[in-house]
Amino acid sequence: MEMRLLTLLAIALCLTGSAALAEPKSAGTPDPKLIEDLVVANRVIADLGVVDGFGHISVRHDKDPNRYLMSRSMAPALVKAEDILEYDLDSVAVDAKGQALFLERFIHGEIYKARPDVMAVVHSHSPSVIPFGVSRTRLQPIYHMSSFMGLDVPVFEIREVSGPASDLLVRNAQIGAALAKVLGDKTVVLMRGHGSVTVGISIPQVVFRAYYAEMNARLQSEAIKLGAVTYLTAEEAAASAKTNDALVMRPWELWKRKVMKPE
Amino acid sequence: MEMRLLTLLAIALCLTGSAALAEPKSAGTPDPKLIEDLVVANRVIADLGVVDGFGHISVRHDKDPNRYLMSRSMAPALVKAEDILEYDLDSVAVDAKGQALFLERFIHGEIYKARPDVMAVVHSHSPSVIPFGVSRTRLQPIYHMSSFMGLDVPVFEIREVSGPASDLLVRNAQIGAALAKVLGDKTVVLMRGHGSVTVGISIPQVVFRAYYAEMNARLQSEAIKLGAVTYLTAEEAAASAKTNDALVMRPWELWKRKVMKPE
Amino acid sequence: MEMRLLTLLAIALCLTGSAALAEPKSAGTPDPKLIEDLVVANRVIADLGVVDGFGHISVRHDKDPNRYLMSRSMAPALVKAEDILEYDLDSVAVDAKGQALFLERFIHGEIYKARPDVMAVVHSHSPSVIPFGVSRTRLQPIYHMSSFMGLDVPVFEIREVSGPASDLLVRNAQIGAALAKVLGDKTVVLMRGHGSVTVGISIPQVVFRAYYAEMNARLQSEAIKLGAVTYLTAEEAAASAKTNDALVMRPWELWKRKVMKPE
Amino acid sequence: MEMRLLTLLAIALCLTGSAALAEPKSAGTPDPKLIEDLVVANRVIADLGVVDGFGHISVRHDKDPNRYLMSRSMAPALVKAEDILEYDLDSVAVDAKGQALFLERFIHGEIYKARPDVMAVVHSHSPSVIPFGVSRTRLQPIYHMSSFMGLDVPVFEIREVSGPASDLLVRNAQIGAALAKVLGDKTVVLMRGHGSVTVGISIPQVVFRAYYAEMNARLQSEAIKLGAVTYLTAEEAAASAKTNDALVMRPWELWKRKVMKPE
Repeated sequence: MEMRLLTLLAIALCLTGSAALAEPKSAGTPDPKLIEDLVVANRVIADLGVVDGFGHISVRHDKDPNRYLMSRSMAPALVKAEDILEYDLDSVAVDAKGQALFLERFIHGEIYKARPDVMAVVHSHSPSVIPFGVSRTRLQPIYHMSSFMGLDVPVFEIREVSGPASDLLVRNAQIGAALAKVLGDKTVVLMRGHGSVTVGISIPQVVFRAYYAEMNARLQSEAIKLGAVTYLTAEEAAASAKTNDALVMRPWELWKRKVMKPE
Repeated sequence: MEMRLLTLLAIALCLTGSAALAEPKSAGTPDPKLIEDLVVANRVIADLGVVDGFGHISVRHDKDPNRYLMSRSMAPALVKAEDILEYDLDSVAVDAKGQALFLERFIHGEIYKARPDVMAVVHSHSPSVIPFGVSRTRLQPIYHMSSFMGLDVPVFEIREVSGPASDLLVRNAQIGAALAKVLGDKTVVLMRGHGSVTVGISIPQVVFRAYYAEMNARLQSEAIKLGAVTYLTAEEAAASAKTNDALVMRPWELWKRKVMKPE
Repeated sequence: MEMRLLTLLAIALCLTGSAALAEPKSAGTPDPKLIEDLVVANRVIADLGVVDGFGHISVRHDKDPNRYLMSRSMAPALVKAEDILEYDLDSVAVDAKGQALFLERFIHGEIYKARPDVMAVVHSHSPSVIPFGVSRTRLQPIYHMSSFMGLDVPVFEIREVSGPASDLLVRNAQIGAALAKVLGDKTVVLMRGHGSVTVGISIPQVVFRAYYAEMNARLQSEAIKLGAVTYLTAEEAAASAKTNDALVMRPWELWKRKVMKPE
Repeated sequence: MEMRLLTLLAIALCLTGSAALAEPKSAGTPDPKLIEDLVVANRVIADLGVVDGFGHISVRHDKDPNRYLMSRSMAPALVKAEDILEYDLDSVAVDAKGQALFLERFIHGEIYKARPDVMAVVHSHSPSVIPFGVSRTRLQPIYHMSSFMGLDVPVFEIREVSGPASDLLVRNAQIGAALAKVLGDKTVVLMRGHGSVTVGISIPQVVFRAYYAEMNARLQSEAIKLGAVTYLTAEEAAASAKTNDALVMRPWELWKRKVMKPE
């Protein structure tokens, strides 16, 4: 009899999906300012061309480092405050509200686990970065705006963890953890045949990084065609990144103004 | 006497054009939702840059697999519900309403004949794809968004069916059938010196495919310049395409919202 | 005494500039529809990126083949009906209304002289075409949309007529005639280190050609990077150009609608 | 006791920052037309893509050649008249109004010192120019619109003045003076791993130059891929630059109209 009950429960779990896995408790209502910034950031990364209908941005919960906030599965440009859900670091939604979740939410949860310093994460297929994920040319900073990349950017090959026939998605915690390991202590990691992930200590910083990683890819690609390229040295990158960290609010104000403009 | 009548009839047919060829019977009024989606899709492919003043999208009639729906000859961005006409699979309009028809409507009719699984077709000159139609470099998926292309994309050389001095258009059923044959069971076929055709099982899916074929061409071209490229394997492409098929409504909602926005 | 008078006259001519050269008589009021199309075309070529603040479009006068219509010297996007002036084929304005004229109006006048079939002329610095004017790679049609270019496009080297130290402008009738000679019976001519000129039998056709010359340049440049390119044959180009000539109103309606939209 | 007072004073200076360094006297209220043009120019260079959230434009004060006008530290697209500050040529603000200043204002001050002919300066990271700053290919004029560049454009290597571990910014007068020295009597100087500086005799001219330097970089990059490039000769460049100097108001009217349009 107990066996049958367990089977039924297992079936029920499968039917109701991820939300049924002993839903975690909420860490409480996040600062409304944080939610607002997350909504704005969703529209900004769409407006900047970092994401199209796909891609996502999350932020760590301000009341509990073991929770993060991210929209339900939908196009970033359309996200409103009511679409933001709370997740634990296993990427289980506190209350899925019956909505579909991003298949790749484990990117966020596993990075928040591995990197206590990270407060915000962007996953995108930003176009100019894609070619660097599938060729042997490393993405490297060619100007001060992308100095946060340090000497160069690692590439995550999903075949090493998911085998030769995967759908390329980070669809569980194991793959997410492998990705977080390749990211290491860097700010960006490319995903072969897929896209990239950028991390930061705040929403404005992670958006800044996602945007200038894309810009650097575009410019580096052009520079390579012109001949031998002088990249930033590790020392230049470090010094410049420190300076830029104090300046991220300048473009943020601009980007925010642009997407919040009444239409 | 009968001979003269036949001659007169032949002349009359020539004068009134394609619509006069024993006009086929209508399969009935299509689902208004299908017409609406087709109108939206016309504007979406224009907005995405898949088409400019040229190119067309069709959908199979929901009441009869032997009929399809497509606008009269006009720029996709301007199409309204009243511009949608019904065609049989020989690409004869049920009621042309005195309007000019697309010279290349046979692309659609012949593919619907050859591929019972296909429910929607896009023909475009989307810019980044053109170079792959005129060079020996094959269009291949470099990321999961274009996994529907499988291992690579075939190229239709119209010289093989229309000879060395054609105007490159698929202007009759014979050329359309030859094109459908090169398409085979694939999702995309390039047309040398002309453009491409994308097929799908729904309007949102075929728009998704037309857009990401264009994106892939742009990114693959950049990637090739960076050196040896790692493409998706056949297994990865198959697994990823299956996943993506369940996600086509996400960008569709975004694209639809954008073109339906009050201006 | 006569000598002094002649000198004074010469000085007066210099001071009042080109408009003082025995102003030609007007051929009468042009069809208001022609003026309207010319104003629309000015905005269309700006909207399509064929011109920026520089470049111009003219049309032959409908009442007299020895007159043409073009705006005073100003950015095409800002042209209104009242800015359109009438010129004779020596490019002297019938009534300059005290306005500055385009220094390069001789491009138009000399081509209308040399090519009675030409009814409209566009001069632009459209970006993708520029590189083909300064390298040895010929601009050639890679798809049917640019079949009007025939086998390839000639390049005008101004050094041959203006010497090694010119400002590169077609600033008099002699240079204009030399340019018209290089154009010959073609539809497009490139100008080394400067831009290009496109001609046609109507405003919609010349805009079509100016736009697709730019598109072809962009696509050909990409195709060359992918390896050996299959261009249209002379026969294909001729057949396709004939077909397209009947289709120029389709994109024209779209472009016109876009720039005339109330904002 | 005096020693302690001096120490306190030094601390106070450090705390209040640059504005505390014996604030220079104002040269008086600038012509409101000049302020208006500077505000417009800030929006224009943003609209043209010459700057994004970063970059700045200044103009020499019309009442005193030893003063210049530039906004406080903010995104150019958002600048209003009240954000314009007055600086002396040591780049000390007359009245910082408690606002943050651009770290790199020394670019402007040192160039105004070294070049009495210069009336306006733009510093930007305009994208197509960046690759020319990090490769050995020199930026050279390929068409008449960029003839102001002369034969070619010098590159400033900040390592020569700031050493191998700088943050790449022109953050003091010494670096600014070194940059001005490399600029010499030219109109543009590239900054390795950073961006560029353009100078002119007026706001419309410097904006024209900043825009066409960017355009030239884009076109030259494409031309190089097509093979051997014919650049303007020194004589052609000089003759063309002289002609263009009389035409800068034409695009300026267009650009101004576009950014001042009511939204």
